[in-house]
Amino acid sequence: MKTTVLGIGAWGTALANLLADQGCQVTLWGHDSRLVDLIRNTGTNPTYLPGIAVDPRIVPTADLHQAVRGQDLIVVALASRFVRSTLQPLRDCSAIVVSVTKGIEFDTGLTMSGLLEDIMPHARIAALSGPTLAREVAHGIPTAIVAASRDPQTAQLVQTAFHRPAFRVYTSGDLLGVELGGALKNVIAIAAGVGDGLGYGDNSKAALITRGIAEIRRLGVACGAQPETFAGLSGMGDLTVTCFSRLSRNRGLGERLGRGEPIQAILSSMVSVAEGVPTARAARQLARHHSVPAPVIDEVYAMLHEGKNVQQAAHDLTCRDSKAED
Amino acid sequence: MKTTVLGIGAWGTALANLLADQGCQVTLWGHDSRLVDLIRNTGTNPTYLPGIAVDPRIVPTADLHQAVRGQDLIVVALASRFVRSTLQPLRDCSAIVVSVTKGIEFDTGLTMSGLLEDIMPHARIAALSGPTLAREVAHGIPTAIVAASRDPQTAQLVQTAFHRPAFRVYTSGDLLGVELGGALKNVIAIAAGVGDGLGYGDNSKAALITRGIAEIRRLGVACGAQPETFAGLSGMGDLTVTCFSRLSRNRGLGERLGRGEPIQAILSSMVSVAEGVPTARAARQLARHHSVPAPVIDEVYAMLHEGKNVQQAAHDLTCRDSKAED
Repeated sequence: MKTTVLGIGAWGTALANLLADQGCQVTLWGHDSRLVDLIRNTGTNPTYLPGIAVDPRIVPTADLHQAVRGQDLIVVALASRFVRSTLQPLRDCSAIVVSVTKGIEFDTGLTMSGLLEDIMPHARIAALSGPTLAREVAHGIPTAIVAASRDPQTAQLVQTAFHRPAFRVYTSGDLLGVELGGALKNVIAIAAGVGDGLGYGDNSKAALITRGIAEIRRLGVACGAQPETFAGLSGMGDLTVTCFSRLSRNRGLGERLGRGEPIQAILSSMVSVAEGVPTARAARQLARHHSVPAPVIDEVYAMLHEGKNVQQAAHDLTCRDSKAED
Repeated sequence: MKTTVLGIGAWGTALANLLADQGCQVTLWGHDSRLVDLIRNTGTNPTYLPGIAVDPRIVPTADLHQAVRGQDLIVVALASRFVRSTLQPLRDCSAIVVSVTKGIEFDTGLTMSGLLEDIMPHARIAALSGPTLAREVAHGIPTAIVAASRDPQTAQLVQTAFHRPAFRVYTSGDLLGVELGGALKNVIAIAAGVGDGLGYGDNSKAALITRGIAEIRRLGVACGAQPETFAGLSGMGDLTVTCFSRLSRNRGLGERLGRGEPIQAILSSMVSVAEGVPTARAARQLARHHSVPAPVIDEVYAMLHEGKNVQQAAHDLTCRDSKAED
């Protein structure tokens, strides 16, 4: 199978390795031609996945048209804000296009698959999402993930392309639910990190995760997703790992925020994107549009985008008298 | 309100402190008169909650009848295997009796509240359960918990007795679901710990937690609990904290098992009880009785009680082709 991964961040690089190991022909495209050259010349991606060998069978390139021409499967592993502008020239693409980007477009409220459908009407769209820290996948640590598509055959093709003993791929028909779980958990993870930075403990975090998944489910169902999806790998599974893991970028950003660092200083020091920051803005708008109460998202938005004091936000969230069990 | 806490482990001691701080008259009963004397004389519980002051208004005693006579509220914070034998003499008790013990009686398949109803038919039975590491509660770290009773008024009385700004108590009418979530998560946490001991990562743990809560819900619903209870604090909230926290005894036992220590050596070195060990046995029996598939519980049982090799058990669990999303 001829495959291309668009995006040379940690996740794109780890997935390219996985596909190459499966025997696929893999092209790895990045916008940054200097990093592409570095990957080609050193056999590693020192910026985003240091210490991991990039499979020598992978062909790195900075030429988008060459990268996607005649491919069977294209993986979109770009930061959400670059997806529309990067893929706009690929309107005629009819390949299987799999989003592994977790985000919501602010202007349209679309998840990444919705955005891809909008840009590439002839493509067969899917998403791959779940509790999958890139570095652990790169090290071959057992991982489970969901391949979602509205078309069952497309979901199965994606499953077959990626599945292996230490990377178990399950299928789902609830594309929207799988993507919303993945996107919204990044916002909750920022709140979890703020708690870490303020010295809160695991009891507080467990309560936040419980409220967080209820909030995600409420908003997801209002958008048309299936409620049971949020109890699965791409919902509570991904939320859990992102809120607890030391490797999570969004949790880490929240922790620094909780310790008192200004958001601009944190963002300008980060190499990788913390998708929770733009997603908080899009999620708040989505919740308002659907008249869904979203207290955690509201407080994260206020800390990130309105300069709200983190201690005040944590206090307002902890003492809010909403039922934890709703 | 006149209250008694039965049990001088970490959780009993932390809850006695909480009640004393609320202005209750608190008696703290323990079977071990030497430890009772030590608490009385030193104002601490060095065996189970070292470094935390025991409120001087608390009256420690080793006399059970004196401890429970004329009390309004009795908290049962004993290891599950001592509950029936300890409380058997209290058949005429008509107080509010709150179980904070997480376990299932092997011979009867009863949760602790069922067992209390059996022993004390005139008492008003409730359970208090959720993601509540005793040490964090003792330090005043924000915590949320569920007070469950079949009688709404009893649940509210328990809520009022315990509720405070940093210890938020929510109510539930699904007593069985709240208790089963609390008891069964200890079994899943042992599996999570085994993964830690074997060097698995957070991706694996997230997948295990997702399968674990599905398994708990399946078994709980077969026993008559409400499915939505398992999405709450006493279900996925408690499961999450127990599987991730360094402070969790059951996870810690699993970690040592995963590193290759024999189960008997681990158990004999532990000061506190790991309830997951007897619960694995009772849960497996319950699952068989209800014909509910319970692969995680089965593997934990096999490791603990049949001497199954931990690597083999982890392999069998990881590669089992059940759907992760069911």
